[in-house]
Amino acid sequence: MTERLVVVGGDAAGMSAASQARRGRGPDALGIVVFERGHDTSYSACGIPYWIGEVVDDRADLVVRTPQEFRDRQAIDVRTRTEAVGVDTAARTVRVRDLDRGREYDESYDQLLLATGAAPRRPDLPGLDGPGVFGVQTLDDGQAILDHLDACRPRRAVVIGAGYIGLEMAEAMVVRGYEVDLVERSDRPMTTLDADLGGRVADAMDGMGIRLHLETDVQGVMHDGDRLRAVATSVGELPTDVVVLGLGATPDARLAVEAGVPVGPETGGVVVDVRQRTRVDGVWAAGDCAEVHHRVSRAPAAIALGTIANKTGRVAGINLGGGYATFPGVLGTAVTKVCGVEIGRTGLGERDAERAGYAPVTATVQTTTKAGYWPDTASMEVKVIAERRSGRLLGAQVVGGAGSCKRIDTFAAALWNEMTVEELLNVDLSYAPPFSPVWDPVLIGARKAWDAVLADLDG
Amino acid sequence: MTERLVVVGGDAAGMSAASQARRGRGPDALGIVVFERGHDTSYSACGIPYWIGEVVDDRADLVVRTPQEFRDRQAIDVRTRTEAVGVDTAARTVRVRDLDRGREYDESYDQLLLATGAAPRRPDLPGLDGPGVFGVQTLDDGQAILDHLDACRPRRAVVIGAGYIGLEMAEAMVVRGYEVDLVERSDRPMTTLDADLGGRVADAMDGMGIRLHLETDVQGVMHDGDRLRAVATSVGELPTDVVVLGLGATPDARLAVEAGVPVGPETGGVVVDVRQRTRVDGVWAAGDCAEVHHRVSRAPAAIALGTIANKTGRVAGINLGGGYATFPGVLGTAVTKVCGVEIGRTGLGERDAERAGYAPVTATVQTTTKAGYWPDTASMEVKVIAERRSGRLLGAQVVGGAGSCKRIDTFAAALWNEMTVEELLNVDLSYAPPFSPVWDPVLIGARKAWDAVLADLDG
Repeated sequence: MTERLVVVGGDAAGMSAASQARRGRGPDALGIVVFERGHDTSYSACGIPYWIGEVVDDRADLVVRTPQEFRDRQAIDVRTRTEAVGVDTAARTVRVRDLDRGREYDESYDQLLLATGAAPRRPDLPGLDGPGVFGVQTLDDGQAILDHLDACRPRRAVVIGAGYIGLEMAEAMVVRGYEVDLVERSDRPMTTLDADLGGRVADAMDGMGIRLHLETDVQGVMHDGDRLRAVATSVGELPTDVVVLGLGATPDARLAVEAGVPVGPETGGVVVDVRQRTRVDGVWAAGDCAEVHHRVSRAPAAIALGTIANKTGRVAGINLGGGYATFPGVLGTAVTKVCGVEIGRTGLGERDAERAGYAPVTATVQTTTKAGYWPDTASMEVKVIAERRSGRLLGAQVVGGAGSCKRIDTFAAALWNEMTVEELLNVDLSYAPPFSPVWDPVLIGARKAWDAVLADLDG
Repeated sequence: MTERLVVVGGDAAGMSAASQARRGRGPDALGIVVFERGHDTSYSACGIPYWIGEVVDDRADLVVRTPQEFRDRQAIDVRTRTEAVGVDTAARTVRVRDLDRGREYDESYDQLLLATGAAPRRPDLPGLDGPGVFGVQTLDDGQAILDHLDACRPRRAVVIGAGYIGLEMAEAMVVRGYEVDLVERSDRPMTTLDADLGGRVADAMDGMGIRLHLETDVQGVMHDGDRLRAVATSVGELPTDVVVLGLGATPDARLAVEAGVPVGPETGGVVVDVRQRTRVDGVWAAGDCAEVHHRVSRAPAAIALGTIANKTGRVAGINLGGGYATFPGVLGTAVTKVCGVEIGRTGLGERDAERAGYAPVTATVQTTTKAGYWPDTASMEVKVIAERRSGRLLGAQVVGGAGSCKRIDTFAAALWNEMTVEELLNVDLSYAPPFSPVWDPVLIGARKAWDAVLADLDG
């Protein structure tokens, strides 16, 4: 008998899972239906700021595989512009709405995968749902922004929130020639970096002409009729022609909650086990809508990132295809580039580490991406967070010029294996003058952190 | 009472050790004398090809710290142009020759560190010791090459050996405008890479106009009186104005051997324990002249690399300064760039793995350094070598455009921790479109290798 897998959400997690399930079981054994609210499948949401910023020419470039390709090559019945509006876990049916034709119908399932992604944070403020205000979550969002820019030919933009997306969008708007105000509630941009590393990011933004308003609350968005006029903030009105929300995203678990599928009280993400099963029989979850285990804090987390969506989708899909796979958790690794500065982080920051119950010691070093004498060597800062006494690596952060940020991956591999900084400083990393000082920045960071651990013992 | 540490060799290992020993014990407790045959201390030998190739302007750029700086800042009595010619381990004295004044004298020690480095391989062939033939080991060697190039204004160069140094020197000679022939005994350049990855390197060399003669033996170097004329090879004479030896280097353990300090029969390097002690009381060794433990092959190795010299020197120095440190071994990690192609390797190649008693399976993948749609994304190849059945990572190799080679560090960290490729494929590595596809090349390599391990089980 043919079993039926229904997937809700056709981006990274949903389509990775569908593909993997198909690899495990052919069309005779497993029918696969995917419902996707938007027009696209398997797209790079992370690429949207670069599409807006004219680094990437074409929307189609951001689509890894189209719905038709999934249908033709993998016999996956992808139905776009179709929104799941309810789940009956007892009857094992999903209620869906065909957004173009306006009709609703029920689809039955044997196994259901929730891959509903994340929703951009929208504070409950006046005017935020009005015209000219945009999130950056889907390609349709990106298209809406571009259509608005074409239509209203703006001069000024306000970006709310100075996290990854906010910074990337602020830069994209500057590239397009707009005056950009960036409003951030906290005392620095990029709060996923420790405060001592954030300065270089703020300087770079300043150098590009972005006006950064820190410790500033947004009070609302003001319109004149249908026309956007300004953003009201705690430091006054910022006149603008377009508003971009860069406040990050939270798990979109509405469907799960309504269906009685448990979500984590702290994260708002669907609770899953290591195989991506929810607590309801026959229901699975993967990607941004699900919780993940953070391997260093040892707590559940919700992190909206394509890497995690792909990996958890793959694990769910292997299991749904009759195989066995587990997802071992995350480290909170992330990189970006804003205004020419590369930024990377993994594991816990200093404060995070304290909150997680560790006693951290830290070391911050100034070094270079290449041999000091190499013509285009760039400066970089490395901060390493280690546990008192044991010296266990807890996290690392890097900020610097070209060639800085991917070094975070080596820290991530060390962190994954619960290495101490003393062990790490001896690892046989590569060296050649065009790529590294003879002690790679990773090793220098580990050495200085080990010195700090020893000094702390003496002190 | 003041103890006396004598160090023979003032480059990376010797000076790292001297510095560390000084950190551990002040001048009242420990007198430190360093004998160095050449003019320089602590220089970047790896930078010499780039000095010749005019990427680096000045010899002084390659010197990390001068003898005078060691004397002034760390009270280390560095005596350059002073060659150690014999050791009496019973009397605990070193016989040295002052090369400029021609006199010899004995220096007594309580502890002796041998950091005599490596000597470039010079096959025993006619003419090889004649004028116009150069090794590339010390800054003095580099200066000798440059002086020769200035004096004879050459048109043609022959490089013997297509390893790291040979390739880098061939490129440097092309940059200077010479016609370059590169002669290599084996069937491909860069034999530290598996054969299937070497093709791209050969293509890149060809693209730069380097004439590569593979499977070609050098029979001798021919002179007309004092003038270099040609290199005689198994495929005929190659006329030339300068010959560079790029045949790699072997441990320079002559002093140790003559003093009865045991060297490894396979490596020719001084046998040391994890603290860098030789088998003779009071005698230590570090850097290129010493053996290292290879963590994957589980055999002793001799690898002439600044990274290892710095690390083993540091370990020796901590111990000599009254502390405790051990050196955990190497992976054989190395990177370089030749003719625009980045190359990296760590662990064992396919053949190495078989020789070490492993049953390897491999996977080679074509991927990109950045998101596929990113404007200047470059292609790269990743080969992963894993153990049959267990899936344990044994080695990895990468070849590709800008941004490829430092990824080998992540493999190195995984290899260090004896991860399986199944574990590795889930590691939380970073992603952003300017830096990586959503599955980083490291993860794609691990995934395909795990597929290969599973297919091998089925097969």
